[in-house]
Amino acid sequence: MPDFATLAEFRALLAAAPGCDQSARAAAEARNDTLTKPLHALGRLEEIAVWVAGWQGTDRPRIERPQVALFAANHGVAAQAVSAYPAEVTAQMVLNFEAGGAAINQIAASVGARLTVRALDLDRPTGDFTQGPAMTEAECVAALRIGWEALEPGTDLLVPGEMGIGNTTAAAALATALLGGDAGDWVGRGSGVDDAGLARKVAAVAAGLDANPEARADPLQALRCLGGREIAAMAGAIAAARVARVPVILDGYISTAAGMVLARAVPGSLDHAQAGHQGAEAAHRAMLAALDLDPILSLGMRLGEGSGAAIAIAVVRAACACQSGMATFGEAGVSG
Amino acid sequence: MPDFATLAEFRALLAAAPGCDQSARAAAEARNDTLTKPLHALGRLEEIAVWVAGWQGTDRPRIERPQVALFAANHGVAAQAVSAYPAEVTAQMVLNFEAGGAAINQIAASVGARLTVRALDLDRPTGDFTQGPAMTEAECVAALRIGWEALEPGTDLLVPGEMGIGNTTAAAALATALLGGDAGDWVGRGSGVDDAGLARKVAAVAAGLDANPEARADPLQALRCLGGREIAAMAGAIAAARVARVPVILDGYISTAAGMVLARAVPGSLDHAQAGHQGAEAAHRAMLAALDLDPILSLGMRLGEGSGAAIAIAVVRAACACQSGMATFGEAGVSG
Repeated sequence: MPDFATLAEFRALLAAAPGCDQSARAAAEARNDTLTKPLHALGRLEEIAVWVAGWQGTDRPRIERPQVALFAANHGVAAQAVSAYPAEVTAQMVLNFEAGGAAINQIAASVGARLTVRALDLDRPTGDFTQGPAMTEAECVAALRIGWEALEPGTDLLVPGEMGIGNTTAAAALATALLGGDAGDWVGRGSGVDDAGLARKVAAVAAGLDANPEARADPLQALRCLGGREIAAMAGAIAAARVARVPVILDGYISTAAGMVLARAVPGSLDHAQAGHQGAEAAHRAMLAALDLDPILSLGMRLGEGSGAAIAIAVVRAACACQSGMATFGEAGVSG
Repeated sequence: MPDFATLAEFRALLAAAPGCDQSARAAAEARNDTLTKPLHALGRLEEIAVWVAGWQGTDRPRIERPQVALFAANHGVAAQAVSAYPAEVTAQMVLNFEAGGAAINQIAASVGARLTVRALDLDRPTGDFTQGPAMTEAECVAALRIGWEALEPGTDLLVPGEMGIGNTTAAAALATALLGGDAGDWVGRGSGVDDAGLARKVAAVAAGLDANPEARADPLQALRCLGGREIAAMAGAIAAARVARVPVILDGYISTAAGMVLARAVPGSLDHAQAGHQGAEAAHRAMLAALDLDPILSLGMRLGEGSGAAIAIAVVRAACACQSGMATFGEAGVSG
């Protein structure tokens, strides 16, 4: 059971988490330089493998039990008509996840990842943040705890995913609160709103910032006031992975926003995460840059569900396979 | 057995190959628009799935038996000191492939692809193209036939890969002959030559073009005069895939050069291929652009062996899994 009952205790737990194993990381780098390939010829794969090595505490990292942890929730701000889809689609899609019919079901199976799905109080949307806080502290902590507990024992790579009509608006509000700028800098078309919908999203984010002045002052208050249950659950799962030294691949705009909350709440707390892909939501690029994250893939995806990051699992697994399975020049008798 | 004994017969066979199944492609597009996701939210994945659908002749494409067909050969031009490695490394690496110790062994296993390895006359390098043709027509046809035969029955996605000390120089010579410009436009550091080595590569390519005037006039003559056995074998495998309507993922600079020969010899003959990744060899970008190919991945890799394209197999498989396995809005009862 997670050992926190308040946001302050959550922050303290995160702040106390150990860093990566620097000696394993160094050993992985040294081994990498002896493998049968021109130096650094595997490019980003080598960086990824060394990064995983540090978090797994071995110079021979492996990805054998990746998990896509999917969370779904409903948002009060959906009442502001900020999505191209009605709010009931969240629950309908949860049934689709459970029946195996969604994109993430196919992608997770394709890359050999377990998919866990957790719906959070779908019949109880968060408060409309244009009017006041989305969640009480108790509600936010409950969602963080659900996420924390979703990290399964044995998971060696975590992808947090989400579904929640209205949640690109919540992510944009979080970005505005934590990264600065105006609402218009962080709002995009999400699942496909028209120009009028885009204007409503900008207005909703601006109103949300006005209605929740504490959001700019404290990242965890921003999560409580502007986030949603699935965003808090992703943050909880990412935090649990940080404490357990499990590497994380962030997905698109909303998943990255959950990571951003942690990175801004406790410096260094997102060091165990990489960006799985560059989402098509325009502001995702700026958010990744603010977090100093370089996406592994860029496939024009804008679905969420953890779908882009789940594909990146295949890249991370291949990177670790090379790091751990390749022969050295000496072993293979190749002239280096 | 491949039905050609001359370059002219090879060209004729390629020119007679049928195109993709346009009705299957259209059916795949129509199905894609009904799947439980916002329209086009899977970005490049949707394009890939529809492309595979056309070549597989079904609206529900699947990747179940991908093959990485690796070819190795030695180059006479290696005598011009154009590589950071001695020529014996080609044979040493073939032993490494056969022992399972190379990067491509790990990557192929990681993505669930079969790896086939074929060494072509390693003790008999091609002629040094700075002095005259690299191959006779008989030698070039023999290599094309070996590649053609390497495509295994049942393969539903082909990645051609290569190993051959000196072969980035051959690929640069092919690019200069077929795409125009000067030698310096197409030469890069390959596996890691220093500035003096780079200058020797430029000089070798320029000399190769001077010594083989027929190379600029005919793409298949360019292959014979400036290519190598592994490059011809990759071209043969890609051509066999074209005739069998098997989609292909090209790897880096040398693999792409093999595809370029076909595309320039017979327009449309590379329509069944996509670029797996953007290699770090600088001229690869220009070559891909000349062929109107947009790389699926960009991971800073520069290894060859089919390694980058093999990782892209995971993307293509996931794309097809979504196309074929997802529920429609109607099936899932989701409000579209």
